[in-house]
Amino acid sequence: MPDPTSKASIDFERCRIEDGKGWEKLSVERILDHRYIQIEEVRYQTPARQTPVDWTVARRKSAIAVAPMLPDGRFLLIQQERYPVQRALWEFPAGQIDDIHNRENTDVILNTVHSELDEETGHQLAPDGELIPLGYFFSSQGYSDEHVYLFLAKNVVPTGKGPSPDAGESILGCRALTASELSDEIACNHIVDANTLSLFARLCAKGHIDPSD
Amino acid sequence: MPDPTSKASIDFERCRIEDGKGWEKLSVERILDHRYIQIEEVRYQTPARQTPVDWTVARRKSAIAVAPMLPDGRFLLIQQERYPVQRALWEFPAGQIDDIHNRENTDVILNTVHSELDEETGHQLAPDGELIPLGYFFSSQGYSDEHVYLFLAKNVVPTGKGPSPDAGESILGCRALTASELSDEIACNHIVDANTLSLFARLCAKGHIDPSD
Repeated sequence: MPDPTSKASIDFERCRIEDGKGWEKLSVERILDHRYIQIEEVRYQTPARQTPVDWTVARRKSAIAVAPMLPDGRFLLIQQERYPVQRALWEFPAGQIDDIHNRENTDVILNTVHSELDEETGHQLAPDGELIPLGYFFSSQGYSDEHVYLFLAKNVVPTGKGPSPDAGESILGCRALTASELSDEIACNHIVDANTLSLFARLCAKGHIDPSD
Repeated sequence: MPDPTSKASIDFERCRIEDGKGWEKLSVERILDHRYIQIEEVRYQTPARQTPVDWTVARRKSAIAVAPMLPDGRFLLIQQERYPVQRALWEFPAGQIDDIHNRENTDVILNTVHSELDEETGHQLAPDGELIPLGYFFSSQGYSDEHVYLFLAKNVVPTGKGPSPDAGESILGCRALTASELSDEIACNHIVDANTLSLFARLCAKGHIDPSD
């Protein structure tokens, strides 16, 4: 269990999502109430517009994505069959926050990072490892509220038990790439998911990776 | 109109999306048929799984996002009210490909880049400017087929007519950032959308930006 007084918890609290000020939902009509996605027609009063605006919004669980770094500095990626896009992608481990009533709770989010790391790669933080929050991103802000919290897991080691993915998942492999190899795979359009690209952007911007190396 | 024999067209053709091999849709049930989003329950036979898998998929138009670079090397970002996430975000210009019957047509995609650049920033490519394709990304491959084609528009200049956004859009401003300022805004979690982060990742990986500068 993450310690709420831990550095990871305190750092995470500094970059969590806050509600926008001056926004109001004048009406909400739910047109699809599905287990995995809810579609709403919403009338918004926004801080900048003089008149309300009607918009279609897809509600989704929030999620996490994590860049696992080995003690030698290489990054772990998994290859996973992604059904909606009909291909197997190489990407950083990621997963949804299933406890929807506590989806913005720091402990719940950090626990999800640890369990996805374990389940998808068979790795865990080493005793001297560190979980470093890298903010969040919106996957498609034009129509969805889905957001993904990003983390660097520095110094991960095998659990010894191997991966244990969910039955619905189809994880085909796991491999370690140097920062330079990761950059090359991104440059040539082999890595194509928003989670991995957004993590790479934050890792570069915060100086954890130098793509010119 | 883009020239199909132009460098941008030829470069774009090299990194377009291709269908995954060995995938089959055994059944499709459409549970929501909406103007902006279609939700389907799909049974897939995948190349790697021994048994079929049922999955909920959100179909969306494809889109483009473009990093406009001024002759002095600074990048143009716009600030836009994004209703589903209830805040105004600073981001690179982006837009959907409205011609759904030709959504993977190179000319249609390149035309959308030029018109979004014009409408959202009031800029266009200079006579010596270049539109450089930077591949694509999937915004949320766990549930949606939405994909966004990425471009660098090198050497953009004002059209003289100013921006002309759609009535439903709420664009509040436009500003130019150096690569270093852009990197700082990404590092401190002020830039939080998948389009801009994915463009930044490709710009870094392909050497157009050095975040350590």
